[in-house]
Amino acid sequence: MSVIYDRVALIGLGLIAGSMSLAMRRRGLAGEVTGYARSAETRDTARRIGLVDRVCDSAAEAVEGADLVVLCVPVGAMEAVAVDIAPHLKTGATLSDVGSTKRAVIDAVGPHVPQGVHFIPAHPLAGTEHSGPESGFAKLFDNRWCLLVPEGGVDDAAMANLRLLWEGMGAHVDQMEPDHHDLVLAVTSHAPHLIAYTMVGVADDLRRVTDSEVIKYSAAGFRDFTRIAASDPTMWRDVFLSNKDATLEILGRFTEELFALQRAIRTGDGDHLFDYFSRTRAIRRGIIEAGQDTDAPDFGRGKQGE
Amino acid sequence: MSVIYDRVALIGLGLIAGSMSLAMRRRGLAGEVTGYARSAETRDTARRIGLVDRVCDSAAEAVEGADLVVLCVPVGAMEAVAVDIAPHLKTGATLSDVGSTKRAVIDAVGPHVPQGVHFIPAHPLAGTEHSGPESGFAKLFDNRWCLLVPEGGVDDAAMANLRLLWEGMGAHVDQMEPDHHDLVLAVTSHAPHLIAYTMVGVADDLRRVTDSEVIKYSAAGFRDFTRIAASDPTMWRDVFLSNKDATLEILGRFTEELFALQRAIRTGDGDHLFDYFSRTRAIRRGIIEAGQDTDAPDFGRGKQGE
Repeated sequence: MSVIYDRVALIGLGLIAGSMSLAMRRRGLAGEVTGYARSAETRDTARRIGLVDRVCDSAAEAVEGADLVVLCVPVGAMEAVAVDIAPHLKTGATLSDVGSTKRAVIDAVGPHVPQGVHFIPAHPLAGTEHSGPESGFAKLFDNRWCLLVPEGGVDDAAMANLRLLWEGMGAHVDQMEPDHHDLVLAVTSHAPHLIAYTMVGVADDLRRVTDSEVIKYSAAGFRDFTRIAASDPTMWRDVFLSNKDATLEILGRFTEELFALQRAIRTGDGDHLFDYFSRTRAIRRGIIEAGQDTDAPDFGRGKQGE
Repeated sequence: MSVIYDRVALIGLGLIAGSMSLAMRRRGLAGEVTGYARSAETRDTARRIGLVDRVCDSAAEAVEGADLVVLCVPVGAMEAVAVDIAPHLKTGATLSDVGSTKRAVIDAVGPHVPQGVHFIPAHPLAGTEHSGPESGFAKLFDNRWCLLVPEGGVDDAAMANLRLLWEGMGAHVDQMEPDHHDLVLAVTSHAPHLIAYTMVGVADDLRRVTDSEVIKYSAAGFRDFTRIAASDPTMWRDVFLSNKDATLEILGRFTEELFALQRAIRTGDGDHLFDYFSRTRAIRRGIIEAGQDTDAPDFGRGKQGE
């Protein structure tokens, strides 16, 4: 592939930014990638491992002359960064982000975007439970979705270029409305994460089931939850605070259903349980057919069975 | 390894029984493995693929002369099977099972065990979301735990042989008291499964988030839930009905914690969320150190990133 942007600036140098840099480098998609992180330690690490072409000591310096600027910081930090970099953005540049919620990002960043800069929020549906500048890898976005979530009209050429970049980094690209994005993600990601965090917290609290037993015998089920519940605390705090309404709505529905299943257990209503579990099995089949996972028998086995 | 039992009978020919047969064959642990399943279709399939050495058309025939009989049927079906086979068990034989709950199995099967037969309930902590005679594979138990859960005194030699068999099939073996087993498993497996089933059911119900979007964008979090929620409906119905008290207790704790986190989201209490998420992260670290999973960055990626 050829160069899509002469200069790309990544603000924040964690898992996503690092993976973007490595994915762009893999295909030569950017002339130069600059980077900035608030923490001097993160900047030092990024320099040491050569994560981007040039690590800058200020966000302003990093975005100077950049054709694409991507905010890769937690959602709660985006407004401050936007205020900081706004005066330094090049006219004609594209400003994007990788936040997990989009209405909050649009509200926080939108008002600070200068005339002549194309603001196209984005959300790559990819990640691991690891974080920090050393956690990135070039294949993170391969075959994953990246949603572009602009509000209202946006420059066609700017959209086309950003789409090309994400496709070049391995992703499939779709466009979605901001509020709909936040509801879909509340179902597919935000509520499941909160539930996993909760279940792991419950296990941790129990006095009669010692930590070592919970860990030692963490079979199918719980172990998958612990992986989810090991995700970056700052990022997830901001996700829940910035997608409050949709998350609370889904959790309310979840609680209703859970109570119905608890009642079925208490009353011994096996038919209700069987019918419910049969229905959910079909959804899994749909996901496998959609190519978002395989049906290899790895559940409860991690990497050990391979 | 050498032969541990001259004849092993497997009653039920699903994922666990099939994997046991293949794992015993891999190391030559049994002289002959017989098998029986209630469904003629399952028996035909087992014969066709050579899952066991001899498929029998009755449970009585399968257990005739067997040194070890293992009940590999859902917990709710165990009592009927025990009644059926009891008159045909060889004196000195060991009777075991692989059910996910143990108090219920002991109550259901125990009273029917003839004098001179050693009853040692067991629970291999291994599985996949697949079921049926064609889902088994020899490596299923490798590096997984198998818990032996006898109540009261049991013959030392019988225990030693069953332990040897499970170790020969690749598992680590531990002994546990029945009621404690049921509580530990409620935390590490049963409650997480019910929660995953619930979340997938909620997603399925939502009208505004179409099925295709939930499936298409099933990123990190939800996809792991769908895998869990694809597990065998009959088996899991019986798990919840037969471990009612412990499961409901853990779900009660879960709901308390979830409400506290929901309140933190509603009131914008970021510190509470951050502290909670930081605590759960440590548990994951413990599981990796205990060798029950790796920290390879595969979360949300299934097999695709490998």
